[in-house]
Amino acid sequence: MSRLDNDIFLRALLREPTPRTPIWLMRQAGRYLPEYRETRKRAGSFLALCKNPALACEVTLQPLARFDLDAAILFSDILTVPDAMGLGLYFIEGEGPKFERPLTEEWEIRNLAAPDPHAELRYVTDAVAEIRRALGGSAPLIGFSGSPWTLACYMVEGGSSADYHKAKMLAYARPDLMHHILDITTQAVIAYLNAQIESGAQAAMVFDSWGGTLSEAAYCEFSLHYLQRIAAGLIREREGRRVPSIVFAKGGGLWLEALAASGFDALGLDWTMDMGRARALVGGRVALQGNLDPAVLLAAPEIVAVEANRVLDAFGPHPGHVFNLGHGISQYTPPENVAALVDAVHAYRPEKC
Amino acid sequence: MSRLDNDIFLRALLREPTPRTPIWLMRQAGRYLPEYRETRKRAGSFLALCKNPALACEVTLQPLARFDLDAAILFSDILTVPDAMGLGLYFIEGEGPKFERPLTEEWEIRNLAAPDPHAELRYVTDAVAEIRRALGGSAPLIGFSGSPWTLACYMVEGGSSADYHKAKMLAYARPDLMHHILDITTQAVIAYLNAQIESGAQAAMVFDSWGGTLSEAAYCEFSLHYLQRIAAGLIREREGRRVPSIVFAKGGGLWLEALAASGFDALGLDWTMDMGRARALVGGRVALQGNLDPAVLLAAPEIVAVEANRVLDAFGPHPGHVFNLGHGISQYTPPENVAALVDAVHAYRPEKC
Repeated sequence: MSRLDNDIFLRALLREPTPRTPIWLMRQAGRYLPEYRETRKRAGSFLALCKNPALACEVTLQPLARFDLDAAILFSDILTVPDAMGLGLYFIEGEGPKFERPLTEEWEIRNLAAPDPHAELRYVTDAVAEIRRALGGSAPLIGFSGSPWTLACYMVEGGSSADYHKAKMLAYARPDLMHHILDITTQAVIAYLNAQIESGAQAAMVFDSWGGTLSEAAYCEFSLHYLQRIAAGLIREREGRRVPSIVFAKGGGLWLEALAASGFDALGLDWTMDMGRARALVGGRVALQGNLDPAVLLAAPEIVAVEANRVLDAFGPHPGHVFNLGHGISQYTPPENVAALVDAVHAYRPEKC
Repeated sequence: MSRLDNDIFLRALLREPTPRTPIWLMRQAGRYLPEYRETRKRAGSFLALCKNPALACEVTLQPLARFDLDAAILFSDILTVPDAMGLGLYFIEGEGPKFERPLTEEWEIRNLAAPDPHAELRYVTDAVAEIRRALGGSAPLIGFSGSPWTLACYMVEGGSSADYHKAKMLAYARPDLMHHILDITTQAVIAYLNAQIESGAQAAMVFDSWGGTLSEAAYCEFSLHYLQRIAAGLIREREGRRVPSIVFAKGGGLWLEALAASGFDALGLDWTMDMGRARALVGGRVALQGNLDPAVLLAAPEIVAVEANRVLDAFGPHPGHVFNLGHGISQYTPPENVAALVDAVHAYRPEKC
């Protein structure tokens, strides 16, 4: 087994007891940190930063140098897979991601192929290996991917959307084509995550950012089904350790039971679901990760502490909680509030029940 | 009692048996209709259309002339109340609503006052009266307002927002100020809805579009509490008839039980909550309105019928269902698909159980 000085994040994901609740933050390497903005400037663009393993490694480690966090997460974008499929990812400042060649024609969909993660996505596996070396066993590294439905939304829309109506229209009007996109993308995501694990990622996380925009029936058909396939296809053990898997389902609070049965070790919750209710519903089957509203980090440090304790109290004195935000950290977050949050979570000692 | 040829919408809201499931559609008077686009062009702008009672009446009736709908809804905007409070509502094409004078300073918040609905909002009560006359008892008229939290979001942000972080920051950092905004706005909404009822609205609906962006604890404190005050403050009977009340809570599927106890006669559901589950949870206490995903209306008519039947089947053969979309109709909807939807709902006869 490779050296790992702090494994409480991995143990909490497997619902093993830990001396305290581990914490990391979605998008913890990001624009709220001045050192990130400096590196990004040096890289020239967000995408150049993602595609440069040395710089991706540098920004991945920045939040761990500042805060006593219990995990690092690969710095990358969720849209690397469709980019590697040839869709041509690019970013316009303030507008979010775009594709040069979104899927608009049937032949384009029929021609989709899963990329070789060791070729087109080599910059990612190189970054993973470099980050692992740089971490030197101080904290575990999380690899990640977007979910098939989430990737398909961007691939069909060509970018972000208020309501993903093009993606949904395709799903309702031509389910055969949508399922083809989802099938190929699922194969790609499994290969991609496993390549990250083989390169050193010690946990794997899938972001289902847009599953929550679907009806329950459509969610089961177009998102959950493919999440189950991913959970079943992931490498379960590596370097003598279990590689826990997490699915973050934004808006998935309505479908917790189905998600808990999907095969992932842990569910990431957005901030709308009460953590106590979630634990009561599914805490016996999966670990839970979350779920402070990122907006709380815009208030004063003492309010951050109160609200963090509220989430911790709601989960209660049980194993299986990884503290996190309910969504990515806001770029407007004062870094000192992150310090206050990490302190509050570290200081927390649940009442014994 | 005033003449009303078709009262199945009002009866379903009170969970009385009806010969079939009534249907109307959120934003049924809107851009998907060529006749609406023509009237709006004539008005000059969206806001000019809202503020002209004769034109507002004209567009309110347009969908009922085309489709056999069971209710009309006042054509207006949810932000008329803050506009009447002096914030200066305006629209930029493609960007959604904006305020010239959003609430940024404490003194601006302290100076807020509830407008007199018969003065600053006279154009709304005049429109309600004109629409009632024009309907001539053929279908009931719904009046509406935004919820206090939803209005406060726009008032603080100055427009739409991806995450409403300014409004949330104020709620977390200065709850006293946010509660002041919500208190004044609640008084204004009650007076506004009661003025609509006195002018002829036969049901009252509150749109809580952004409550679903809050954590459960924050939802109870900043949205639900004020919804309860509104439900308690509404005129309950008029013209010898009950005036049913509806609260539409986007993203409120997680809090159905609390919403069902809030005092409204009916809950409007977005499309993410399964209608059968919702009925099982709260159908014994409130009527339910919804909840087809508006994106379904972008597929072929036969798919519209299949998906509409799925919602109807999920609710089952019980009283207390008003068919609707789970959100406003998309501007890209082909009108013939709306016809297919109305036909499918009219043709539906549940299996007796």
